Amino acid sequence: MKRWNLVLTGYGTIGKQVAALLEQRQERYREKYGADVRLVGVARSTGGIYAGEGLTRAALDAFGRTERASDASFSGTDFMRSCYGDVLVEAGPSDIATGGAGLAYIRCALEQGMHVIAVSKGALVTDYANLSGLARKHGVSLKISGATAAALPTIDLLQYNVAGCEILAVEGVFTGTANYVLTCMMDEGISCEEAIARAQQMGVAEPDPTFDLDGWDTACKVTILANAAFAGQLKLADVPIMGVRDVSRKQLAAWKEAGLTPKLVGSIRKTSAGVRAAVELLAVEPTHPFASVKGTTKAIRVETDVMGELLVIGGKSDPTAAAAAALKDLEHIISR
Amino acid sequence: MKRWNLVLTGYGTIGKQVAALLEQRQERYREKYGADVRLVGVARSTGGIYAGEGLTRAALDAFGRTERASDASFSGTDFMRSCYGDVLVEAGPSDIATGGAGLAYIRCALEQGMHVIAVSKGALVTDYANLSGLARKHGVSLKISGATAAALPTIDLLQYNVAGCEILAVEGVFTGTANYVLTCMMDEGISCEEAIARAQQMGVAEPDPTFDLDGWDTACKVTILANAAFAGQLKLADVPIMGVRDVSRKQLAAWKEAGLTPKLVGSIRKTSAGVRAAVELLAVEPTHPFASVKGTTKAIRVETDVMGELLVIGGKSDPTAAAAAALKDLEHIISR
Repeated sequence: MKRWNLVLTGYGTIGKQVAALLEQRQERYREKYGADVRLVGVARSTGGIYAGEGLTRAALDAFGRTERASDASFSGTDFMRSCYGDVLVEAGPSDIATGGAGLAYIRCALEQGMHVIAVSKGALVTDYANLSGLARKHGVSLKISGATAAALPTIDLLQYNVAGCEILAVEGVFTGTANYVLTCMMDEGISCEEAIARAQQMGVAEPDPTFDLDGWDTACKVTILANAAFAGQLKLADVPIMGVRDVSRKQLAAWKEAGLTPKLVGSIRKTSAGVRAAVELLAVEPTHPFASVKGTTKAIRVETDVMGELLVIGGKSDPTAAAAAALKDLEHIISR
Repeated sequence: MKRWNLVLTGYGTIGKQVAALLEQRQERYREKYGADVRLVGVARSTGGIYAGEGLTRAALDAFGRTERASDASFSGTDFMRSCYGDVLVEAGPSDIATGGAGLAYIRCALEQGMHVIAVSKGALVTDYANLSGLARKHGVSLKISGATAAALPTIDLLQYNVAGCEILAVEGVFTGTANYVLTCMMDEGISCEEAIARAQQMGVAEPDPTFDLDGWDTACKVTILANAAFAGQLKLADVPIMGVRDVSRKQLAAWKEAGLTPKLVGSIRKTSAGVRAAVELLAVEPTHPFASVKGTTKAIRVETDVMGELLVIGGKSDPTAAAAAALKDLEHIISR
């Protein structure tokens, strides 16, 4: 039986779900793939825990409960090197300006010949091309489902489901929070502020909803997908961005009057000048496939040369679903 | 560079498209995967052609043009054994009663340690469990996208896109021809006979439309998917079947009156008595995701434990798209 040692960086809501779901699935990995998968190390900014034979539930719970001040002497990458892992799951906070600690973890893992499953977006947004080059050089996988709409298959759709086809265009409703707010505004006629407050009450929106509502989340996803699936060289700054707060109440009323539905749409297109991506607030006709995509639901549409168009709608937007997307990536790695 | 020798059985519309599309993509396989893929043998009931270094376009064209009487002395399996192939693409006629020649080809290929890409359904419907066991024993792949709705991802969705999740239920509009006929009847108020005649004129329906319209095509697809994705032990005879010709004009009018839309739906469910599949003519509400799936468009909906629901709509239904689905399977094999 092949042994797979996992290291997890980031132990917030999603990281904890990754550990919990992994525990549930370990027996199935043994039976189905002959893979003995163990979580041997977990690190966050304040420190890490390691157990060569696999961390116990008790150890993970204790680690999760412990609130510690950030420890400047703790080096996450040194810790990770000492874990002798086969796979890194990076689920820390997304630093989309510099890549942050996640970028250091992912680089370090790839350089050691570890497979990487990225859930956070920072490293991928800032340095995808180099990371992907490192993965190729070391013959390992860099999997990104968790960072690109998670339970809604996006990178899988482009790279696996239509493998071999030329992809002509991609567009999607990639941010559940933004779509939820827009849906409330349109269907119930409430203001953007009211819709945001409701989304926050329901745990759909973060206390600071800027990232999701002002188009950054969608922009990160299209940037990563453009670079991963189209070998693009896009930076986040190359992507024109709109957000749901860019629309006036008057504009909304006019769209409603005209039977149109606003959607925050991320798109990727090949042009003669290279791969281009954008985030736009589009008012779509009732027959448009995105018109019926409501609430926190996400969707992606891909247009190919010989297989026609495919539209995928759905996939839960909660931390368990995000963890499941990361473990789907893991399953692709251990089943190869 | 790794050499991959392909053998193709069946040289009808889809087989020819497989050969043509392969020719277009060979260079990309070299560049992307370091894979030197060559079509070395093609067989049909009347004979075969072989070229160890790869069949030329001229040889394929000549073979395609030649009309020969069936040759009782020609053994397709002997021919296939002599080709020393790495991958078989089986694209012959589907014999859903016995598996026919396709079953013999696939068995023979797997026993020789060849990967198999099945486009025809006969072998899979009649003997999936044994074939899959043979593939496992020899450490090779048995890929079935071409036989299970082709450009619409079905088996990929169940095995790859939601890998690791428990699948609670699957349902789909799996037969483009049946959906086309139903759509014409509902949207234009024409009779079933008129709709069939139009589908035949447009090349959407076969001269004998029984297989598609009476539910057999959908039944084959759900049988194969149930056995492949749920380790079911279903036979075609276990699947209750309805067809689009089972509906009366009166019934149609009543549905229209009630705002309902009839869809030929194939479904798979886990029950306490094991995996069950069915083909039913269902009248769905306007809000049902299949209500807007019109014409030859296909769709699949999957319900999972932790990723929620996914709905996929689309994928062309022509021979090129079917060939592209087979070559997608090939790409999964050579990229591993």
